[in-house]
Amino acid sequence: MHINEQLQAAELRVELGDRSYPIWIGSKLVERLGELCLSKQLSTKSPMMIITDTHVEALHLSTAKQSLEAAGYRVAVHVVPAGESSKSLSHLEACITTALEAGLDRKSAVVALGGGVVGDLAGFVAASYMRGVRFIQVPTTILAHDSSVGGKVAVNHPLAKNIIGAFYQPEMVVYDTSTLLTLPLREVRAGLAEMLKHGLIWDQRFADWCLEHADELLSLREEVLQYGLYAGCAVKAQVVSKDEREQDLRAILNLGHTIGHALEAVGQYGELLHGEAISIGMIGSAMLAERLGEAADILPYTRRMIEAFGLPTQIPASYDTEDIMSAMMHDKKFSEGEMVFVVPTAIGKVEIRRDVPVALVREIVDELKGGARG
Amino acid sequence: MHINEQLQAAELRVELGDRSYPIWIGSKLVERLGELCLSKQLSTKSPMMIITDTHVEALHLSTAKQSLEAAGYRVAVHVVPAGESSKSLSHLEACITTALEAGLDRKSAVVALGGGVVGDLAGFVAASYMRGVRFIQVPTTILAHDSSVGGKVAVNHPLAKNIIGAFYQPEMVVYDTSTLLTLPLREVRAGLAEMLKHGLIWDQRFADWCLEHADELLSLREEVLQYGLYAGCAVKAQVVSKDEREQDLRAILNLGHTIGHALEAVGQYGELLHGEAISIGMIGSAMLAERLGEAADILPYTRRMIEAFGLPTQIPASYDTEDIMSAMMHDKKFSEGEMVFVVPTAIGKVEIRRDVPVALVREIVDELKGGARG
Repeated sequence: MHINEQLQAAELRVELGDRSYPIWIGSKLVERLGELCLSKQLSTKSPMMIITDTHVEALHLSTAKQSLEAAGYRVAVHVVPAGESSKSLSHLEACITTALEAGLDRKSAVVALGGGVVGDLAGFVAASYMRGVRFIQVPTTILAHDSSVGGKVAVNHPLAKNIIGAFYQPEMVVYDTSTLLTLPLREVRAGLAEMLKHGLIWDQRFADWCLEHADELLSLREEVLQYGLYAGCAVKAQVVSKDEREQDLRAILNLGHTIGHALEAVGQYGELLHGEAISIGMIGSAMLAERLGEAADILPYTRRMIEAFGLPTQIPASYDTEDIMSAMMHDKKFSEGEMVFVVPTAIGKVEIRRDVPVALVREIVDELKGGARG
Repeated sequence: MHINEQLQAAELRVELGDRSYPIWIGSKLVERLGELCLSKQLSTKSPMMIITDTHVEALHLSTAKQSLEAAGYRVAVHVVPAGESSKSLSHLEACITTALEAGLDRKSAVVALGGGVVGDLAGFVAASYMRGVRFIQVPTTILAHDSSVGGKVAVNHPLAKNIIGAFYQPEMVVYDTSTLLTLPLREVRAGLAEMLKHGLIWDQRFADWCLEHADELLSLREEVLQYGLYAGCAVKAQVVSKDEREQDLRAILNLGHTIGHALEAVGQYGELLHGEAISIGMIGSAMLAERLGEAADILPYTRRMIEAFGLPTQIPASYDTEDIMSAMMHDKKFSEGEMVFVVPTAIGKVEIRRDVPVALVREIVDELKGGARG
């Protein structure tokens, strides 16, 4: 973990040529947001806008705003309701109304203060306002260690999630681990699921480390959390650096997501958290690996990992197999008759398989429901 | 003018590294749209979507659609009402509904068949659908020779025009000059105003050529029009190649636009056409050049040119000077106390002046209304 002494925080870089940017990870960084913005040469002449939600507003908005104002910035604020429904074009329009009324210009910055929903919405505001202004991610959930890195921003359409958006990289990601200390346990577990995924797709040593430090991560020991987020973001950053626009490699980040997205859809996005759904999906992928003759330790290892974090390994019995299959068929990752799946080939290694028989997937979904074997 | 023998059309390239693209200019190219799409390796496996408006639908949609279908493409169509009000987020959402229902995927293309409104809307649909799909411009107005090149796409917000958008380059521009032959004369004149601007900012020989061929251009002699559009697009392409994201040079394309946009706003976008407004603006810029001590021939030359094309040289008397000034102050190009103006320094040459006194601009606006001198 590289520590920047001057800023007293861990520093990681996402390498994307002239769009490269730093990720800062440390305690109480929201208090120093103004200083960090000055260090990125963000002009104090142009007003800024913080976008946050009703939940985070109560916890961290005044700290963030005061820090920016102390550094000399004029700050407008736009608060959206907490929850997925704020990722809509009508909320986008409302954010832009606030930006116009506050006089944001081409040199202004939009700050996302919140979890994945706020980051995705604010990112698309930053990408589209005046055809693009500067963008700063201040994630306040564990899950957002994934979504705040990589530049995928979007809002939802009534017929499809994340379908209206852009690839738009932030200027910096400011990750204040002290904002994570108030998260409810179920959200902590679900957020850590993406961290486990980063180990499973890319880095066996990191996967082993996660397994060894499960209890400390779950009890939010801040320095352990900082290392985990650092290593998780590092995997994401490397993958994104090699394939910013999801032409090929970036698809490996979808481990567990084909089944996971289908489960979220069938539960109408209200039953399973994203991290819970992809945990079940990762078990499914490991079962697939076993059937396809990959290394024998993948399935038991994955199961041990998911269980260590108290995440679910089975599909709720009430979910209909055909509903799940049909939700998967509508997934963007499905193409022309055979299914595309991210399949583990070892611990810390996956490949994209485009030849997975639909019948085999159906079998695995059935087993994930009944727990017959696997 | 470079002629591509195989495609029997003039070919121009916009050089932008891996985002470079061709502009085809020729007669009856809409009939050959399918062939041109095949030549760009657009997959026939993924459905396409044509976005057009109620006016162009009646004239050219069936030709375009048949040509694409004959080449093997499945084609969905989305028609918006003709007029500026279609550049809205709600029309964007409706376009995306059509795209989802037609099953457009990441390899699909969106085709803009129409003028600037359709191009701007369809371009932002292409930029944001699934975070970006392929985009083809098929302009059907003279004015769109300007807007279809350069990748500026956007929709309007109730408080500001073009404020929600992206820089998003098309895959190709297919300019069928036979679609221009049915344009009403007032629109022809107004469309040619941007062509004159391209001469005035960049290329004295082209400006002279426009002046010499005014009558042939106005009477829509197709081969003369083709050369004019070719040369006009060439200027735009060169400027955009050097400054895609409007950091500096690209601002010269705003000659006449500071005053012009203000006049459009005061007339509530219903009285003056864009080309008419910038014609008056170009006279204003030439008057400014005179006051600032630039070459003496600029103002009489500009006036002769605008008059030769039957375009207006005066602000309607009913427009209030203070309304115009205040609309200009809200313009994106105004910054901190002094006004930014594109000022001619010779025929075919301009510079960006950031030190233009507001009082001088007010004087010129007053004269443009009364015609006292200039």
